[in-house]
Amino acid sequence: MQAYFDNSATTKVTESVRDIVVKTMMEDYGNPSSMHMVGVKAEKYIKTAKDIIAKILKVEEKEIYFTSGGTEGNNQAIIGGTDANKRSGNKIITTKIEHASVASPMKHLEKEGYNVVYLPVDRYGVVDMTALKEEMSEDTILVSVMYVNNEVGAIQPIQEIGTYIKKINPKVLFHVDAVQAFGKMEIRPKREKIDILTVSGHKIHGPKGSGFIYIKKNTKINPIISGGGQQDGMRSGTENVPGIAGIARAAQDCYDNLEQNVSHMMELKDYLIDRLSETEGVIVNSRKGVKGAPHIVSASVAGIRSEVLLHALEEKGIYISAGSACSSNRPSVSRTLKAMNIDKDLLGATVRFSFSEFNTKEEIDYCMEQLQELLPVLRKYVRR
Amino acid sequence: MQAYFDNSATTKVTESVRDIVVKTMMEDYGNPSSMHMVGVKAEKYIKTAKDIIAKILKVEEKEIYFTSGGTEGNNQAIIGGTDANKRSGNKIITTKIEHASVASPMKHLEKEGYNVVYLPVDRYGVVDMTALKEEMSEDTILVSVMYVNNEVGAIQPIQEIGTYIKKINPKVLFHVDAVQAFGKMEIRPKREKIDILTVSGHKIHGPKGSGFIYIKKNTKINPIISGGGQQDGMRSGTENVPGIAGIARAAQDCYDNLEQNVSHMMELKDYLIDRLSETEGVIVNSRKGVKGAPHIVSASVAGIRSEVLLHALEEKGIYISAGSACSSNRPSVSRTLKAMNIDKDLLGATVRFSFSEFNTKEEIDYCMEQLQELLPVLRKYVRR
Repeated sequence: MQAYFDNSATTKVTESVRDIVVKTMMEDYGNPSSMHMVGVKAEKYIKTAKDIIAKILKVEEKEIYFTSGGTEGNNQAIIGGTDANKRSGNKIITTKIEHASVASPMKHLEKEGYNVVYLPVDRYGVVDMTALKEEMSEDTILVSVMYVNNEVGAIQPIQEIGTYIKKINPKVLFHVDAVQAFGKMEIRPKREKIDILTVSGHKIHGPKGSGFIYIKKNTKINPIISGGGQQDGMRSGTENVPGIAGIARAAQDCYDNLEQNVSHMMELKDYLIDRLSETEGVIVNSRKGVKGAPHIVSASVAGIRSEVLLHALEEKGIYISAGSACSSNRPSVSRTLKAMNIDKDLLGATVRFSFSEFNTKEEIDYCMEQLQELLPVLRKYVRR
Repeated sequence: MQAYFDNSATTKVTESVRDIVVKTMMEDYGNPSSMHMVGVKAEKYIKTAKDIIAKILKVEEKEIYFTSGGTEGNNQAIIGGTDANKRSGNKIITTKIEHASVASPMKHLEKEGYNVVYLPVDRYGVVDMTALKEEMSEDTILVSVMYVNNEVGAIQPIQEIGTYIKKINPKVLFHVDAVQAFGKMEIRPKREKIDILTVSGHKIHGPKGSGFIYIKKNTKINPIISGGGQQDGMRSGTENVPGIAGIARAAQDCYDNLEQNVSHMMELKDYLIDRLSETEGVIVNSRKGVKGAPHIVSASVAGIRSEVLLHALEEKGIYISAGSACSSNRPSVSRTLKAMNIDKDLLGATVRFSFSEFNTKEEIDYCMEQLQELLPVLRKYVRR
């Protein structure tokens, strides 16, 4: 048996996505900027993709821009957003648990002289609203908070944050990294007061190298990649039509089946959390039910280094992640777990299981069976 | 009959590229940063791709970085390169005929206070070496010259430029946009003294949204997209494995068959140039033989606006471009043609035919047949 529980790292592309990718590579392969029919045909895929995504988010089509993925999207939001608003203030608020593609541009902005404040989180990984309220000021130009944390699945109070910060400074840019949230929950940028929302394709069975950002109309933001002026000048470069058609198809598939997908994943999550919780020496860092994302379970296994467990499970055909696998830097100390104040000894002993709608209860049973056998052996081995 | 003569805008993906794209989307779909086997398998495609490309360019594997395409690559080179070397000088040299993805970041740098010099070209679109020699100075930090012009196919004296500028300032960064050259000629960055070389996948039957840059080791250059630290921190973001495997496959196919592909395209080019030259009122802006790129023919058709001709040919199943189709801004005056001092009346009457190895002589015959019929009619129509 095989069980791929690393869907928050990346997902397998579905057949419907593959079909449209192949069609746009082989048949409707034109350059959307070409004036002839072959180009116009290609351009239609972009229009359709925008339409699909805009409908899902209940926003306007022209508020959707395609990127090469979540990292570009987050860089675009933070660097491009700050750059366009630097005259309005010097303060930026974010959290201690953001993805590296947010944390890294933030570091860059700090070096440039911005005052970047990193909000703490509670033991479940949820941002501290009191701290946010203390820090939020009229000269804050950007607030960036992820929707769902990629390591533990903590859901952030996005609407509450959006509403509060806009009350203090209506001009503040509210950026939300929704890479782990999109496809797993209803997202309404208008309701949640989000100005810029980042999404990645390959986390939702779409193609790698695809992504989009929602940018609320009239938002002051500069491009970070310029050139031929495609996408209203916000993101130049020949549009990746297969990627664009692919991410839209993947998004459509997710949202057409959102309720059943979510309830299925939630069932898997709650089941795994229950099984892990009753296992000796295992501490679960994620929450059951709607308080956590439906697809992420973080667990710390006392006395066993995460890589050791990862490789032991790998031999059984079970694929999980040690902390977050979105970084090429082999496991360093997780900022998220640290911010959650996880026991120091457990920081290096934490693994992540992440689901897609295609995982099954049988896979979890198989995984738990293997764990029951492996844990005592691995612990013994470590003790020697 | 159909004839797609817009290969410099974009190309159809080949079956061999499609196969590897599908395989990496559906089977070997892992995240290269994942530590388990599924991730390691995906990572191998990247290693293989680097190996293939490094062998073609005769450079080291670690000097290859994957991007989302030519526009990102050019932005990375120019913005990232300048940013890392700003303390060494304030002068940048480029040409009047660069692609928008070079010209646009240059404009940005001008606004930031850099002294950007735009070299003139001769009537064939070849950069003026005398002007370069006059302008090149010890405080020049970046020289950016495209290998092959995308609108007329002019080949630039890259090796001569590289050798000269390095003599004046060994530390100057030499960036070459090789988007229209790669796959059509032998490129040797070491021989040509190139520090940064930009390549795009979709111009060589590879996937859209794929590209790479060669960056000579020890080159001072900053990333423009940061995050998880993938690709030695030069380009963060989950690697687009299908795009990477696809561009490498496409590159391999090009260079395995370089001689026959080039001689075939050259034959088509020379044949089309001959046929166009003997047509009344048509002026060819591209050069026959090895003095021009093998795949691009620019021609001005007195008295007929380029869009009119484009759409007339489109109805016959022949797809060409009005000027350069890499820009979403519908035909504005071409900087390249202007710099070449093309007759003012012909600026808006210039079209581009661009080949791939899959075009045939029969397609050109068909195109010429249609042109012979169309031109008198279109001219008559315009005169009324």
